[in-house]
Parts: sequence; structure tokens; C-alpha cells
Amino acid sequence: MAKKPKPPKLSDEQRFDWLRLIRSENVGPRTFRALINNCGGARAALEALPELARRGGASRPIRVAAPEDVERELAAARKLGVRFVALGEPGYPPVLRQIDSAPPVLAVAGREEALQQPAVAIVGSRNASAAGLTFADRLARGLGQGGYVVVSGLARGIDQRVHAASLDTGAIGVLAGGHGKPYPAEAAPLIARMIEFGAVVSEMPIDWEPRGRDFPRRNRIVSGLALGTVVVEAARGSGSLITARFALEQNRQVFAVPGSPLDPRAEGTNDLLKQGAMICTNADDVLTALAPTRTSDLFAASLEEGGGDGEPLWGEQSLFGVDPEATPRTHPGDEFDDAGALAYQSADREAGARERIVALLGPSPISVDELVRAADASAREVRVALMELELAGRIEISGGDRVALRLPAGGTG
Amino acid sequence: MAKKPKPPKLSDEQRFDWLRLIRSENVGPRTFRALINNCGGARAALEALPELARRGGASRPIRVAAPEDVERELAAARKLGVRFVALGEPGYPPVLRQIDSAPPVLAVAGREEALQQPAVAIVGSRNASAAGLTFADRLARGLGQGGYVVVSGLARGIDQRVHAASLDTGAIGVLAGGHGKPYPAEAAPLIARMIEFGAVVSEMPIDWEPRGRDFPRRNRIVSGLALGTVVVEAARGSGSLITARFALEQNRQVFAVPGSPLDPRAEGTNDLLKQGAMICTNADDVLTALAPTRTSDLFAASLEEGGGDGEPLWGEQSLFGVDPEATPRTHPGDEFDDAGALAYQSADREAGARERIVALLGPSPISVDELVRAADASAREVRVALMELELAGRIEISGGDRVALRLPAGGTG
Repeated sequence: MAKKPKPPKLSDEQRFDWLRLIRSENVGPRTFRALINNCGGARAALEALPELARRGGASRPIRVAAPEDVERELAAARKLGVRFVALGEPGYPPVLRQIDSAPPVLAVAGREEALQQPAVAIVGSRNASAAGLTFADRLARGLGQGGYVVVSGLARGIDQRVHAASLDTGAIGVLAGGHGKPYPAEAAPLIARMIEFGAVVSEMPIDWEPRGRDFPRRNRIVSGLALGTVVVEAARGSGSLITARFALEQNRQVFAVPGSPLDPRAEGTNDLLKQGAMICTNADDVLTALAPTRTSDLFAASLEEGGGDGEPLWGEQSLFGVDPEATPRTHPGDEFDDAGALAYQSADREAGARERIVALLGPSPISVDELVRAADASAREVRVALMELELAGRIEISGGDRVALRLPAGGTG
Repeated sequence: MAKKPKPPKLSDEQRFDWLRLIRSENVGPRTFRALINNCGGARAALEALPELARRGGASRPIRVAAPEDVERELAAARKLGVRFVALGEPGYPPVLRQIDSAPPVLAVAGREEALQQPAVAIVGSRNASAAGLTFADRLARGLGQGGYVVVSGLARGIDQRVHAASLDTGAIGVLAGGHGKPYPAEAAPLIARMIEFGAVVSEMPIDWEPRGRDFPRRNRIVSGLALGTVVVEAARGSGSLITARFALEQNRQVFAVPGSPLDPRAEGTNDLLKQGAMICTNADDVLTALAPTRTSDLFAASLEEGGGDGEPLWGEQSLFGVDPEATPRTHPGDEFDDAGALAYQSADREAGARERIVALLGPSPISVDELVRAADASAREVRVALMELELAGRIEISGGDRVALRLPAGGTG
């Protein structure tokens, strides 16, 4: 076994670049990872962005975040006591790090230690029944006493009840917007207490006002922070079921609390039970099912893994746990500068693959695997093409690993 | 394949003997089957009873039902329009016939055709909630429309609601007592309508007033008549859970209706879900799960199988679907009469096995298989010994195939 290096920490300059990269147009967590893997680091990726987006077919230059905006966000964060923790750094939640679309940078308010403990997510309806609220309260206390931090989404109803019930034992809230615009507004006193005793996190810019689409996106972090997710009450089509789906995609345990078939608030949870979720009628159900996961070495691993191995340009890759030997290194900069026949050939091939991929895509999402099979291109070519297409704003990558063509919205990207 | 003989029917004399045998002391459904298999028919079994019980160690002569009592029961049945159908006869419910402890004789009021159709049992609390009753009603109608006869136990609450909701499509009730003492009394008008449109059955003597222990015993017939059992509401330890356990032992599908963890009436059903019962929130859940069972050849088989093959003495065995070639025939009568050395030897051997078995038994039930392993005797010897011990009132055979020593109750057997 190779000697395990110390957990890496970004320099202030690197952290600045990471924040700037993730705040740039069309850069999501997956594209961020692809950029770091392909360019070797955030600084190089920022330099490559305009050309990559152009190659992806962008109709206008990509908006790279302005250094002044990043400065402003860092200053606002300092004022609010919010710290930025990068994926792979020692303070980053180890369980969240395992998910595909882990936020590259997490804005944390409160006690970072809370993010290092085993956690369970409890989610449910905003318009919960009295019984649902009582059960959520009891469950949160039971899990807290069982040694789990409890994660939820700060929403009215079940979420807030769960946070209140786990203040003493460890509560984590995930914001759909930025720390500077806590939502919902009425949760401000609760959030203040959570920051004192637990933690509140966000992946969004600090002054971001959450919109509809930010909530499902946030839910992947709720489930991603936890070893398992319990859905207490959920009507069909409700946001809690999205959290459950994320948990499933993330290979986390999904629990559902049963309810009367005549209660519409139980339709979603009963459906989950039909789909194979574990039934939860008390905290013990969860404690028993998660006991083996909890004793896994996920937590220990996060403190040992990774670490820069001395090569400054590629060092940031190691934060994703990527083995530089196993990943073909492409430094797009080389290709841009090199006018030789080989580079042209390669660029031609890639442009061809890119357009074949666009032709294969439609508004209905398909998996990247299907795409690789259909595209007559290597997995690497497809990944690079998708990165460029996403930077160009031409495609959308959704939950799991599914890609769809972005529909033109009246000429504005 | 052997030519399938016609379904057998008992002669009036045989039916009389069957009823007399099952009404005799210490003769349960399993002992009845063992007696027919060992003696060849009910008449021979009745003759052998006193000696078998004596060999089993009975402290006083076994009470064989008096012919006058059987005459009286037959007359009472005629007056009430109740018919006796023997196991293996064409009118006997084919699905019930498959269970280990199928009643050898079933007293049927109403339409025998109802007993030939695929059925589902729906059971639940006596003190049901309004939601539970509404759901039971909806489920019974849905299953009726789906082509199933619905079976239940005539009790207050869920059972009666289920019967009322399936009158038009087919309702079967199972009495815990006899047809002459319908219980509960308030169900009399419902029972009258069920007899008109469906059927009500009982294994008990016609004037039997049901006692506590008759209800769980009855429940095996409720589940045994059905391809699957749905438990709508059930507190922990309730009778509906006994029905569910019987269904499981009978290799029938068990369904449970989920409920709030805060509702004590849902504790039993939620427990069932944890133990692997299928979740039922509507009739489709049941219809879908049972569709493959329904198209099995259970129903067709019951009309083709069996049939006397011309040997009068052993003919009644065929009603149990026993292959006479595969079963060693012992005609105890031979042994009683035969004073030869071989019979003495065999009787000695059997007496030794019997006492070894008694020594191995205690008040906690153990399985017959365990007993065979521990007793240093053949499976056949153990079965014969158990039959004799049960006739002697020294042992008790409970659900599944479990045997325990009967505790002496102050000297009276």
C-alpha cells in the first residue's frame, strides 16, 4: 500500500480560483470536476473556459465570474462567519464527498465538527399532519440519542420540527439559496440556533435568493450528507420524494414512514414502501439498518485519503480522489497552441464526436452510458464533448448521469 | 400419465362414519388423516380407536362419538339447510384442501359454487377506525369486481363490513362455533343474506357454542380458503395476526395495510410489513400479486384428482390425495388379532419408540422433524406413536407441525 499523504488543503489563491470557477456560467459540480481533471487545476480551467465553450458551440462568449464578485462574496462570507470548504479538504463532509454531484465548494456556517459525524436525513411535507409532526419530533430525538446528526431542508412543517428536535444532539440544515438570504424568512431564529449548536450549509452564492429549481437541487445535498433518508409524510410528486430518489441514486438507504391509504400525505411514503424502501415506525428501525454503514471506514477514509503528491499543476485533481495515472491527462492549452498535424486531427475527431453527440441528444434525458454506446466514440471523448457542450449552455445534465439537449428559450442562453 | 378417475364421493354410510370419527375425542384434522391413512377408512378407524388410545397410554377409555349424537347432528343440519362436505369431495373448497390441517368435514350453508372460486381473505380489528372500515369496504368491493370471493370471520368491525361489501360479488364467512349457534348473535341478519348469496362454513359440531380457543383455530380456515390474506388494521397480539401467521404457514400471500406509527391499530400491520408482508393500499396491489396464483391449476386439479381406485378398504385414503403405494399400510386390526412373534416384536418396538418420544417431549412445542431426529425411530414410527399419544390425550399438536406434552389438569384428561 502506498503511504497515505496528509489531507490536502487549498491555498488561499486556489480557494479563490475554485470559488471563481464554480461561480462561472454553466459550470456545475460535474463540469467542475471534468475541468479540474482535464485542465489540472482551477486556474488553468478558468483560462481554458472561453475556448472550451466556443468549441462546444456557444453562441456568445461564456461569462467567467469576475474577480471582484468573488472578492465581494468572500468579504460577505467573512462578515457572516461563513467559511468555504472545498471538496476533499479535511473539513468537507466525508459522506457528501462520495456523491457524483458533490458541491466543489461548500459554504459552512456553524460547527464544522457536526459535518464530520454520521448523519440521517429526515424530510417531509410542509403541510404536515399533527401526527406527522409528532412522529418526526420523536424520530429526530431518537436518532439524536442514537448518535446521529440529523439533516433536513429548513422548510416549514416536518423539516423545521426535525431541526428543533435535534438542536441538542446535532442539527444540519441545507439552504436552497445563499447564507445572506436565508429562506424561509421565518426560519431565521431557528437557523441562528442551529449555527450555534450545529451547522447550516449552502452551495449557492452568498446573496442568492432561491428560486423553484434550486430546491430539488438542494435536496441532493440533504440526502448526500446522510447515510440514510427518512421520508415522514409525502404526497405524490412532493419534494421529499425527490430527496428520496437522490438518496437512492447515491446508494443511500431510503426509509419511509407508513400511513393510512386514505391519507393523501401518506401516498408518497406508501409508494416508496412498494418500491422497496425500508419501513420506519421508530428510530430503532433506522439505527439497526444503518449500524453496518456507520461502522464502515467512510469517515476514517476521508481523513486519510487524497493529498497533493507534489506536482503543483495536477495537485487539485487529488481532491476528487482521482488517480492521475488512471486518468488520461489532456491539457487543452497544449492543443490550442499546437498547430501540428496531430492536434488538428485530434481536434477534428473531437468536433466530429461532439456533433454526433448533439445529433443523438433530444429533450428527453438519456444516460451517459447509452450515449457512449450510441456515439461511436470513446467514453473519454464523450465526457470531454459533454463538458464543452455544457459550458456552451447547449445541454443539461440532471440527477444521476442523464443528459438532455437544452431547449432554446427565445434566443437567450 | 395415469388416467384420472372421477372425483370420489362418500356413500351416506361413509359420510356418517367420517362425521362420527371427527366428532370423537382427541381426533383433530391431522389425527383424522393419520387414522384414515393407517386404518384405511373411517369405519376401521372407529373400531381401532379404543385400542390405539390405550396403547398411547390413555388413563381411561377414549370417548368415541355416539351414533345417536351423529344422527342428531345430521337431522339438525338438514333442518338448517346445512350440508356436510368431506375433504376431497367435489364440493370441498379446493384451496382449503391444500392446507395441513384442513377440516375433514366442512358444514356448509349457502351456495357451494362460492367455495369453488378464487378467494381473498380480508381481516381486521373489531374496534376498527372509521378510516379502516372505509378502506375495508373499498377493498372488498375492488376485489369482488376483480373476480374474487371475499372471506372473513364474521366478527364485529372490519369482518362484518367486508362481508356486507361483498354480498353482491361473493361472500364467505367462517364460524368459530356451529351453524346452530351463530356467533356473534348480532350478525344473524348478515349471515342470512350471506347464505342466500354466498356461503357460511364451520368445522364445529352444529350446536357448538364458540369458546376463546375456537377463534384462532377458525382463523386457519379463513386463511386456508383464500389465495391471500389482507390484514387491514390490527393491534399487536390481535387475532388478525394469527390469521396472517396461518396464511404464511399455508404458503399463501400475506398483505398488510400500512398505517400511522402513532396509531396502535396499525402496529400489527406495520409489523407484518417489516416481516415481509406485501403492502396493500388498494385492490390492484392484491389483484396484481395474486394473478399468477389464480391462473394456477389448483382449481382444475381439485376436480380431476383423487378418486377411489376400486379397493373398498383403502378407498377413503384417496380423498387425501395419498398414493397407497407410497404409504406403508398398517392395518392395526391385524396386529391386535395376530399373536405371532413378529407382531409382538413390532408392538414392543413401537411401545419403546412411543415412550422414548414421551420422554423427549415437554410443555414447549418442538417440530415433528426434530422429534424424528432425536427419537432414534423411523418417521413412520414417530407418526404412528404421535397419533396414538394424541388419541390418548397426552400430547397437543399445534399450528404447523409442532408437538408438546399436554400438562395434566388436575387428573381430568
